[in-house]
Amino acid sequence: MSSAGRARFGLSHRPKPRLAPRRVGILGGSFNPAHAGHLDISRTALRKLGLDEVWWLVSPQNPLKSVSGMAPLAERLRAWQELTGKSIQLFVGDVTDYDFLASTIKTFEPDAVIHFAEQRAAPYSMIDRKHAVFTQVNNVVGTLNLLFALREHCPDCHLVKLGTMGEYGTPNIDIEEGYIKIEHNGRKDVLPFPKQPGSFYHLSKVHDSHNMMFACKIWKLRATDLNQGVVYGTTTDETLLDEALINRFDYDEVFGTVLNRFCAQAAVGHPLTVYGQGGQTRGFLDIRDTVRCVELACVHPAEAGECRVFNQFTEQFSVLEIAELVKAAGNKLGLDVEIDRIQDPRVESEQHYYNAKHSRLLDLGLKPRYLSDSLLDSLMDIAIRYRDRIDVSMFLPQVDWRKASNERRTVGEVTSSLVARV
Amino acid sequence: MSSAGRARFGLSHRPKPRLAPRRVGILGGSFNPAHAGHLDISRTALRKLGLDEVWWLVSPQNPLKSVSGMAPLAERLRAWQELTGKSIQLFVGDVTDYDFLASTIKTFEPDAVIHFAEQRAAPYSMIDRKHAVFTQVNNVVGTLNLLFALREHCPDCHLVKLGTMGEYGTPNIDIEEGYIKIEHNGRKDVLPFPKQPGSFYHLSKVHDSHNMMFACKIWKLRATDLNQGVVYGTTTDETLLDEALINRFDYDEVFGTVLNRFCAQAAVGHPLTVYGQGGQTRGFLDIRDTVRCVELACVHPAEAGECRVFNQFTEQFSVLEIAELVKAAGNKLGLDVEIDRIQDPRVESEQHYYNAKHSRLLDLGLKPRYLSDSLLDSLMDIAIRYRDRIDVSMFLPQVDWRKASNERRTVGEVTSSLVARV
Repeated sequence: MSSAGRARFGLSHRPKPRLAPRRVGILGGSFNPAHAGHLDISRTALRKLGLDEVWWLVSPQNPLKSVSGMAPLAERLRAWQELTGKSIQLFVGDVTDYDFLASTIKTFEPDAVIHFAEQRAAPYSMIDRKHAVFTQVNNVVGTLNLLFALREHCPDCHLVKLGTMGEYGTPNIDIEEGYIKIEHNGRKDVLPFPKQPGSFYHLSKVHDSHNMMFACKIWKLRATDLNQGVVYGTTTDETLLDEALINRFDYDEVFGTVLNRFCAQAAVGHPLTVYGQGGQTRGFLDIRDTVRCVELACVHPAEAGECRVFNQFTEQFSVLEIAELVKAAGNKLGLDVEIDRIQDPRVESEQHYYNAKHSRLLDLGLKPRYLSDSLLDSLMDIAIRYRDRIDVSMFLPQVDWRKASNERRTVGEVTSSLVARV
Repeated sequence: MSSAGRARFGLSHRPKPRLAPRRVGILGGSFNPAHAGHLDISRTALRKLGLDEVWWLVSPQNPLKSVSGMAPLAERLRAWQELTGKSIQLFVGDVTDYDFLASTIKTFEPDAVIHFAEQRAAPYSMIDRKHAVFTQVNNVVGTLNLLFALREHCPDCHLVKLGTMGEYGTPNIDIEEGYIKIEHNGRKDVLPFPKQPGSFYHLSKVHDSHNMMFACKIWKLRATDLNQGVVYGTTTDETLLDEALINRFDYDEVFGTVLNRFCAQAAVGHPLTVYGQGGQTRGFLDIRDTVRCVELACVHPAEAGECRVFNQFTEQFSVLEIAELVKAAGNKLGLDVEIDRIQDPRVESEQHYYNAKHSRLLDLGLKPRYLSDSLLDSLMDIAIRYRDRIDVSMFLPQVDWRKASNERRTVGEVTSSLVARV
């Protein structure tokens, strides 16, 4: 690594000789905050891939502030260092800044890049035109930049990209993993599975998927598109080491996922807010399985020229089924839990067929941790322990898909971004 | 129209009373130059839709200068006014400037918007990262802006959007018009036709299509996506009025289409440059049919909530078939025409199945003008008449799909854009 490169990244350690290059894994994400999954992925990658270092490439932070209290990133990194003896260094960067991204890729020649660095919330993208445009430009340009940086400087690197099951929408046929064999008028072909995404955010992921497929075709890049379901759970072995490492518990209507919101509502005696009929069915998975899926993708890389798609979830539930599970868990703890049905702020089918295939990660060795009573109990425990921090007014939807512009209470600025070295 | 609005658009005529609103058609495009198709569309729209005016909403100009001589836009507009007695006023705007676009839509409440205002060249988008990013951001943001402007200010307006047959790629099954009925594991659904676009430009059109489908679904907008084939021909009734109105004749490797390039090559005694095996098959149509297709879409608007797709071409040819036609036309004129096969700079199938449906515009009344000897003769005539302006060095491809960055001779700046009032 050149001294100019060091200065750019603000590193202080001595470079190793060029003849013995370090193997560096790069993990992209918003890291707002750095949480259990990031730490677990990084540790596992260090171990399983024989890496010398893992770098965190941090995207622009989520523009909406977290609604639950959490330790500042610096404090969390310090706690991590004290507990593990491993250091994490921070420096500034952004995947939409091509010079920064390309110089990182060029200097370290990673074997794999895990790209999580995108605006991640559907309701956020539906606030108004500016948020829709920001989401699509940020996500599409970030991924285009990464594809070009790999082509120019590291064409054999394996790109592991976070997509979403929401790219498929809810077709009336079985959802396959990325591609479908179609017989039509006596002829056959295997083609990209038709996409019917349900927000400008989900659309941005569809755009990314098409761009990735094309880049793999023309440049022989290798990529895995992880079409992830709804993640639940907050803790892994690492985060249980210290309270400062506990993941953020988003329960609000923009960044919170449905299971978290229901647990928070049950904890404070608020009715569970089911949107519409509640028949909306999606794939779900435990945060610890998320980490294993990324690991499995990395240790079994795609072939050169291949853009493969894994549907990354372990179980399907409808929203109403999730509500019933939370109600039962709350009742066990002596809580009185009601279920309300409110008007669906989204434009989506409230009752539909849903059967999505998800065998490719199982074939690679994934051992699913299914949603269990004990996991629900632990989520309820967290919600109850921190219930004084819960802001009830964040439960109800403030973003209506049918409106071109929505007023929200708190919309911060998209701030600068960070790179952390584990 | 408020005086502030008039000042913004630089208009000098007196506003009509608000109680008798004008019916204004808005035609988007690069208008670089304003050509036969634009004039014909505008005249036809004035007549058939009973419009009071047609406005031209001009996108950022093509960043590559035209390679053939042509009259400046101002001179062409003056010629048009002298010949027809109709005036065209010019003013500045850009569809990626939301305030400009929204105020235009809001003030005039058009019945239909014809959106051509996008970067239009596949090779241009493949020059390097900056050109790829510009193409996708420019096209996606422009269309997003238009969708939001219609939702906010004119939700009943019919959006007629220029897509491309290149969105489909070359699947091994029949290509349907936008959607396909799929039977899979005993269930059925009608889903968006799978897309396999072949450049970052074609990808931008796929992104647009997905965004449009979603906007129609959630906001009940009405849209027609015209998946256009390769256009040939340069003259219509209007442009034959005066030489100053003749369309630009692009034959270069970035903005020229294949038939034009072959005619130019035949005219100067250069071998016709077929890429690879020449089995690349595409849909083609006459420029006069392009105009009729847009007209048919406008007079038979889509339903509220409908995003329909028309495959807009009339005949299929392979590149080699086009070369043979030009060779025969040249021989008739006494020219010695050779056909060369050069390495394909694109990543594409050079021999493939291709059968694309195109019945919906025929059902609406399109009477195709098929590629004929007389049309080829007239194209050859133009190429021969202006052959002293032909720059032979522009024939050979300078953009290689397999490279991340290509050096080209002349790349200008993307300049400001214009709006013209017909």
